[in-house]
Amino acid sequence: MKKVYLDYNASTPIASEVREAMLPFFESHYGNPSAMHFEGIQAKQAVENARKQVASLLQCQPNEIIFTSGGSESNNHVLKGVFTTFRNKGNHIITTTIEHPAIMNPCRFLESLGAKVTYVTVDQNGKINPNDIKNAITEETILITVMHSNNEVGTVQPIREIGRLAKKHDILFHTDASQSVGKIPMDVNDLKVDFLTIAGHKLYAPKGIGALYIRGGIEIEPLMHGAGHEGGRRAGTENVVLAVGLGEACELANKSMPRNEDILKLRNYFWDQLQKNFNENIVVNGNLKGILPNTLNVSFLGKIGEEVLAQVPDLAASTGSACHSGKVMLSPVLKAMGITEHVGKGTIRFSLGRYTTKEEIDRAIYLLRTTV
Amino acid sequence: MKKVYLDYNASTPIASEVREAMLPFFESHYGNPSAMHFEGIQAKQAVENARKQVASLLQCQPNEIIFTSGGSESNNHVLKGVFTTFRNKGNHIITTTIEHPAIMNPCRFLESLGAKVTYVTVDQNGKINPNDIKNAITEETILITVMHSNNEVGTVQPIREIGRLAKKHDILFHTDASQSVGKIPMDVNDLKVDFLTIAGHKLYAPKGIGALYIRGGIEIEPLMHGAGHEGGRRAGTENVVLAVGLGEACELANKSMPRNEDILKLRNYFWDQLQKNFNENIVVNGNLKGILPNTLNVSFLGKIGEEVLAQVPDLAASTGSACHSGKVMLSPVLKAMGITEHVGKGTIRFSLGRYTTKEEIDRAIYLLRTTV
Repeated sequence: MKKVYLDYNASTPIASEVREAMLPFFESHYGNPSAMHFEGIQAKQAVENARKQVASLLQCQPNEIIFTSGGSESNNHVLKGVFTTFRNKGNHIITTTIEHPAIMNPCRFLESLGAKVTYVTVDQNGKINPNDIKNAITEETILITVMHSNNEVGTVQPIREIGRLAKKHDILFHTDASQSVGKIPMDVNDLKVDFLTIAGHKLYAPKGIGALYIRGGIEIEPLMHGAGHEGGRRAGTENVVLAVGLGEACELANKSMPRNEDILKLRNYFWDQLQKNFNENIVVNGNLKGILPNTLNVSFLGKIGEEVLAQVPDLAASTGSACHSGKVMLSPVLKAMGITEHVGKGTIRFSLGRYTTKEEIDRAIYLLRTTV
Repeated sequence: MKKVYLDYNASTPIASEVREAMLPFFESHYGNPSAMHFEGIQAKQAVENARKQVASLLQCQPNEIIFTSGGSESNNHVLKGVFTTFRNKGNHIITTTIEHPAIMNPCRFLESLGAKVTYVTVDQNGKINPNDIKNAITEETILITVMHSNNEVGTVQPIREIGRLAKKHDILFHTDASQSVGKIPMDVNDLKVDFLTIAGHKLYAPKGIGALYIRGGIEIEPLMHGAGHEGGRRAGTENVVLAVGLGEACELANKSMPRNEDILKLRNYFWDQLQKNFNENIVVNGNLKGILPNTLNVSFLGKIGEEVLAQVPDLAASTGSACHSGKVMLSPVLKAMGITEHVGKGTIRFSLGRYTTKEEIDRAIYLLRTTV
C-alpha cells in the first residue's frame, strides 16, 4: 500500500520544476563563478538570476539576499554577526522560548561570551505577546529575534507588531522564517525586519541551501571569512546548482501561493476526521485559526507519540516528545505552552504540503484508526 | 571551435558518476535525516554511506568526518573553533604567507579578537621550510595551519615533517588540502594532521559541499550551533544530495589515482610545447618536480596575464595578478615567492584535469601561439 508523507515541516520533496532547473548545471556551467572565462560567467549569471528570484518572493532588492548553506547558517550568521559587530553598543539580545535550536544554541554560545539573553515566553497557543518583547527592551538591547512561525505547532507570530517596536527603539530585528516562506506571503518592508532566514528544504528546494535577507545598509561581521563572495558577506565558492534550485523554488512559491488554500482545507478536513474517529481521545495543540495552513499538532490522550508512529510505519510524521529510557520528555515548545505531560506525551505533528491529496489524508486516518 | 577548459584548480566539472549517484536523491529519499520514518531513514543511510566513502579516501574513521558547505567553512570551523576552545591555553597561531583567503581572513578576524598569528613565508618555489615553522613555535602556540598544496603554483608542502613537529610539541595541526585531495594519495595518520579540509568542487563533486577531518578525541567549539547534527559538531540539516555526490567523488578519486600520471605527462607536454613556441618569452613559476601533477603556472614575459586571457576567450584559465585602473597587483603567493612585478604580471595558471586531452592541449597551444 502507498505510504503517506505528512512531514513537510521537517523537509519537503524537491519540486519537479526545481529539479529541472538544476539539472543543466550538473552537466555544464561548472566554472567557478569568480572566474572571468566562459564557464565562470555562465555560473555567475545563474547565481545572480537565482538571487533575483529569491528577492522577488520577499519583495526586496537582489543585493539584500545572500546565499547560505541553510537556515541554521543564516541564523548563526545573524546572531554572531550582530553580537560581534555591536557588542560595544550593548550585549542584550531578546528572543523567545520556542525558537529552533539554531537560534537557541547560538544564544547559549553568545551567553558564554558575555551576552545577556532574555527568553520571552508564549501563551497557551504558542503565541508571543509583543508587549512582553517591549517590556524586555533595555538600553543594552542590540537584537530582537523571533521566529515567523513555529515549526512544531505552526503558530504565526505577530512579526509586524514586533518589527514596529524594534524600529521605534532602533534595535535590529531578525525573524527565522524557515517554516513560513512559501506558505504565507511575505514582505520584508511590511514586516519591518532587518534580517530574515530562509531554508531551501522547507520550500521544495534541496537541503544544503538557504538564504538570508540583510536590509541594505546594514553591515555585520561575516560568519565565514575568506574570499569576497556574496559582496564580502559570506566567503565560499557559490553553491551554483542548489542556488539555482532555491531561486526556482522561490519563483514557484510565488506562483503556488493559492494552493495553500487547498492545503488549509485538507488540513481542516484531516482534523474533522480525526475528531470523528478519536472523539475525546484527541486534542489539538495551538489555535487552528492562527497557525500555518499546513500544520496540525495533535495529542492522542493516553498514548505516547513515538509509539503511535512506530505502529504506523507507512505514515511519516513527527512526535513532539522524545522517549529516553522509559521517560517521556516534552519538547521545549510544548512545555512553554504549558501543555501537561499527560497531554504532551501523546503529541504528533502532521504537516501537509503541495503534493498532499485527500486520498492520502483518508489513508492516514485509516492507518491511525486501525492501529491506535 | 571547441573551447578548452584548463581551470580545474578553480573548479572541476561534476563527474558523470557523481551526477548519476546524486540523481535518485532529487526524486526520492527526501526525508529529513533526523526523522525516524521511512523517508528519513533512507536519507540518513545515504549520508552515512557517503561519510564512509570520504573516510576511505583519507584512511580515517567515518566518525572523524563531518560534512560542511565547502572548503571555506571547513577552514573557518578549525581556526575559530580551536581559538575559542583553547584560548585559555594560548593565543598563538602559526600559518604561512601563501594560504587561501579562507585561512588568511579568519586569521585576520582572530587577530581582532586577540590572537597572535605568525605568517611563515616561502622560498622562491613557494615552499615552506619546516624549520621556519619550528622556530615560530612558542609556549602560546595552539594551532599550526599549513595548506597541503598551493592553489596557484601547485607547490606541495612538507606536511608530514610539519606534522611530526606539531605532534612533538603537542600542538594541533590543520592542513587545507582542498587542492590536493584526489590529486595525491592522502593518509591523515601518515601526515600526522589533526584536521584536514576537503572542498567538493575541486574533486569533481558540486560546489557547496565539503568535509572536514577531525581526529577522533578532539573536540572544538562548532562554527554553527543548533541541533545535534554531525554528532553535535555542525548544526544544519544534512545536505543529502551533495553529500552523496562528495562520497561518490571520493570513491572515484581513489579509483582514478593512476590517471594523475597521465595528467602529469600532459602537463609536461604542455610545458614543452609552450617553451618551443615562446622560447625565452615564457618562464615557469615554481619547481615542476615538487608541485601538483596538474598545475602549470607560467609567466608570459612582457605581457599582462589578464590581457592574454582576454585575447583567447575560448581558453579558460586564471591569472595570477589583478589589473585595477591600469595598475597590476601580483597575487600574495607570487609576491611571497619573490617574483618580480615584471615577471609576475604576465602570470597565467593552467590547471589540467581528469578530462583533459592531448587535443585540448594542442588547441590551447594553437590559440596562445596565434594570439599572444
